[in-house]
Amino acid sequence: MLRELSARECDELLGRHRFGRIGVRDAEGVYIVPIGYAVEDGAIYAHAAPGHKVHLMRLWPHVAFEVDEIEDGAHWRSVLVRGRFEEVQGEEARQHARLLLVKAFEGNPVSVTAGHGHRTHLADAVLFRIRMEDVTGRAEGL
Amino acid sequence: MLRELSARECDELLGRHRFGRIGVRDAEGVYIVPIGYAVEDGAIYAHAAPGHKVHLMRLWPHVAFEVDEIEDGAHWRSVLVRGRFEEVQGEEARQHARLLLVKAFEGNPVSVTAGHGHRTHLADAVLFRIRMEDVTGRAEGL
Repeated sequence: MLRELSARECDELLGRHRFGRIGVRDAEGVYIVPIGYAVEDGAIYAHAAPGHKVHLMRLWPHVAFEVDEIEDGAHWRSVLVRGRFEEVQGEEARQHARLLLVKAFEGNPVSVTAGHGHRTHLADAVLFRIRMEDVTGRAEGL
Repeated sequence: MLRELSARECDELLGRHRFGRIGVRDAEGVYIVPIGYAVEDGAIYAHAAPGHKVHLMRLWPHVAFEVDEIEDGAHWRSVLVRGRFEEVQGEEARQHARLLLVKAFEGNPVSVTAGHGHRTHLADAVLFRIRMEDVTGRAEGL
């Protein structure tokens, strides 16, 4: 039976994954790429190489972020986060975001490069958060 | 090592999955939901209940469709399809699209309801295709 996920179920689903997909507007339509992330205090944290995706998010900061669990067509859950792209500014905040991502990926810095146009060291990356403005989830059979 | 997928690798990845995520523009930004699909002749076929997603695709038909395989941050592939939403019109074309989806989901009509706002019988659904205008893929470690 199709149902809405509670806020707690949405939080739990976001908390137990490390990869989602970010959706960004562009001049023609929409651009979607997978990305590694961590969650803290109502925001999704991630990093990206300077490039197309970051350029688009600066132009159109209202982005979407999706995480799902699909067993089959009758058993699935998905969460959609809508929010605002913000670059993490300032050395202290950047260091905190770096540690959060390194911790989420169990200290393996390679793991935070998924979904990128370019391989980037975390130290050189654009660190950003998506401030969660609206979080909704749906499930069927789970 | 990060690399571009060939056209053939993109086709193969799209061909071996049954669920992807569709990204659609809306007034605020972007909307992403998982969806069951089948591929034929340069188009992604899917269906949806009449509702918010279909309304958005009629307003902004330039949509994105993403499928990925993520083992970990160092081993992943993803394909991004950009194209145009078109409703499948006419009883003959609609019947063909229905059969294509039923076949993709091994005859189980429940399986084609994933990602929907409402549970819908295939007979009552909006059947649509995304004409693939641009297909790109990236991989790391695979």
